[in-house]
Amino acid sequence: MVEINSTRLLDDLAALRQIGGHGTGVVREAFTATDLEGRRWLARRFAEAGLRPVWDPIGNLFGLPPTGRPLVLIGSHSDTQPEGGWLDGSYGVICGLEIARAAQEAGRPGIAVVSFADEEGTFEPLLGSRVWSGELPFSAILDRTDRNGRRLRDILAGMPELITAEQVSPQLFKAYIEAHIEQGLVLDDADEAIGVVETIVGMQHVEVAVIGDQNHAGTTPMNRRHDAVMGFVAFAHAVDEAFRSEAGPSTVWTFGRVTVSPNATSIVPGRTDAMLQIRDPEQARLNHLAARAVSIAENISAKGAVQIRTQVTAKLPPAPLDATLVSTLASAAERLSPGLWRRMVSGALHDAVPVSRIMPSAMLFVPSIAGRSHCFEEDTRPGDLVQGCTVLGAAVESLLLLSP
Amino acid sequence: MVEINSTRLLDDLAALRQIGGHGTGVVREAFTATDLEGRRWLARRFAEAGLRPVWDPIGNLFGLPPTGRPLVLIGSHSDTQPEGGWLDGSYGVICGLEIARAAQEAGRPGIAVVSFADEEGTFEPLLGSRVWSGELPFSAILDRTDRNGRRLRDILAGMPELITAEQVSPQLFKAYIEAHIEQGLVLDDADEAIGVVETIVGMQHVEVAVIGDQNHAGTTPMNRRHDAVMGFVAFAHAVDEAFRSEAGPSTVWTFGRVTVSPNATSIVPGRTDAMLQIRDPEQARLNHLAARAVSIAENISAKGAVQIRTQVTAKLPPAPLDATLVSTLASAAERLSPGLWRRMVSGALHDAVPVSRIMPSAMLFVPSIAGRSHCFEEDTRPGDLVQGCTVLGAAVESLLLLSP
Repeated sequence: MVEINSTRLLDDLAALRQIGGHGTGVVREAFTATDLEGRRWLARRFAEAGLRPVWDPIGNLFGLPPTGRPLVLIGSHSDTQPEGGWLDGSYGVICGLEIARAAQEAGRPGIAVVSFADEEGTFEPLLGSRVWSGELPFSAILDRTDRNGRRLRDILAGMPELITAEQVSPQLFKAYIEAHIEQGLVLDDADEAIGVVETIVGMQHVEVAVIGDQNHAGTTPMNRRHDAVMGFVAFAHAVDEAFRSEAGPSTVWTFGRVTVSPNATSIVPGRTDAMLQIRDPEQARLNHLAARAVSIAENISAKGAVQIRTQVTAKLPPAPLDATLVSTLASAAERLSPGLWRRMVSGALHDAVPVSRIMPSAMLFVPSIAGRSHCFEEDTRPGDLVQGCTVLGAAVESLLLLSP
Repeated sequence: MVEINSTRLLDDLAALRQIGGHGTGVVREAFTATDLEGRRWLARRFAEAGLRPVWDPIGNLFGLPPTGRPLVLIGSHSDTQPEGGWLDGSYGVICGLEIARAAQEAGRPGIAVVSFADEEGTFEPLLGSRVWSGELPFSAILDRTDRNGRRLRDILAGMPELITAEQVSPQLFKAYIEAHIEQGLVLDDADEAIGVVETIVGMQHVEVAVIGDQNHAGTTPMNRRHDAVMGFVAFAHAVDEAFRSEAGPSTVWTFGRVTVSPNATSIVPGRTDAMLQIRDPEQARLNHLAARAVSIAENISAKGAVQIRTQVTAKLPPAPLDATLVSTLASAAERLSPGLWRRMVSGALHDAVPVSRIMPSAMLFVPSIAGRSHCFEEDTRPGDLVQGCTVLGAAVESLLLLSP
């Protein structure tokens, strides 16, 4: 019987929170000294739990059981956003550690743990899991620089752990399961404890450049303007109206980034750059909405006041998760949290996305208080943290029972 | 007879263009080394023309005739926008120099010249003319910093010219006349040579802060969002619609500055700051439109998705110019450019605005090719530059004839 030790789980989470702790939050950006300190602490905790710490060439840290063929890999990432929360990916890594440890104590050593490198995108979102799953060639990314101009190649060369880096073959594992905070409002609103994720949404970006004509804001009559801000306003307004009637129940769209040039009070703006992000669990709807935005841009450009250039980038397909694993998690949730769980979609991306392309994968969510995440206020009630790990442990136990 | 020397006029304009020259444009921001180099060159040119160069404590540079009471002050400014055109204020300063010089040669030494400090607002728009005309207290502005954190007080203390600065009493002058490029399309569209300005528009700024709730762009459902960009889009769209039906024939309005926070692709924006600038020649209409924008913001806030805070700042009343001076300019224009001139409104602010509050003032415009200004492409045909100075010189001559 795999028995989760809730005190040990919460203590490990609290200990990791200290590394890069910043008020109630955590600042532990990928490949900084603090991130490495956190992951070296993890490596020691893996060893103490009887797991062999193994770093792979991109800096993923695995904890591999000593004997026998591992069956299930559990984990997530332990880096954070520039102003991050204490749980985010850390919760999934510590869940993995606790379940592997409990499994070993129960004489079932088939669980491995992973902390994937740079999930938050200091160099590239989901960097470690994308390289490990073969989606992103190792060599293609080495000359990437972070916003401080540091090259990934140089950072990796400076990590003593990587002198003895080993490739960890994905073929070692039969399944990947990731626990994570929901980072949304669904479970908290419904007072539910567990979310069993069926699909991780896909994403398309429509990069928008509204080209106007920079001019004097006092002397250019309204009917002679080519105003790149008002062009953006017309575009965003029309997109929002169209999407409200054509979107699906879980579609979301966001103009998160808008930059105006020259951005001066007395100058009619000459250019506005914006990014429209669309997420949806269905590929066809993603395609339709991105095309709709492009056609709205064309219609506005045809009127002549501004030209709106669009480019559809970051086409990430939805990731449906493994039906058997989802059922196993759902059974454990119904047994241990009857009526307090749901099947749901993940609106956030996770390391499970690239991993799901190479092995059966699944995800389990615990509630985020008020849906807050990627900020210092991010939190989850201790009881929910324990329950998530318990349900995941129970699901893993039934998987181990099924194994030869 | 005051005879403009067109070669000397164009040569001086070309010489000043070299100082801070940048391709076809000029970069000579107020109080930079380049601006001071330009104004020291002007001081030498003033002296060569028999005008005594006098710096006042805020850094305005006057050229005062040697004897007799000056009657008419002619000038503008010689600083530029960060990416400025070669004519802008420089045209008015060099016109003043040429007319004062020609007047002296004609035995009529009653013309003084000025290059006002920092018209473009490195520290404050119309800084030099506002301080000189008593609108802005000298002491109130000294601790202002520019965008590089330099304090005005320290900059003034570092200018050797200001050790011997003198107050130049506005009471020395009976009138102020400013020549300027139109910076708009009206004269160029109509193939006209001269604009006689009757009123300089007033201006109101509505500072807008759209307060939403920063959150994860993947996990926050559309109906739970407090999106500060979409709040801004709704506001700007509604303001534009209302203003289009309620504005006057020469009203202009501009959202020139829009700043989104945190401005990241995957985050629902928590805050958008924007500036709505409204210009109109009539005070009542300015008041009405600013109040309309505030009430639109209140209506959107009442719906609850975002809170839009507004503050009406920079309430600058319209500046009607002196009727007698306007007639004098109009007569000269009709005599020298019959059928090729018009009375018009200035949509741009000028040093003439604060000066008009303390003495009879007037302005004369020459065409801007394609209306372009505040950019490297800014230009005016040489013939138009000469004609503007000639008409202004003729008007000044009739004023001198009238003087005791």
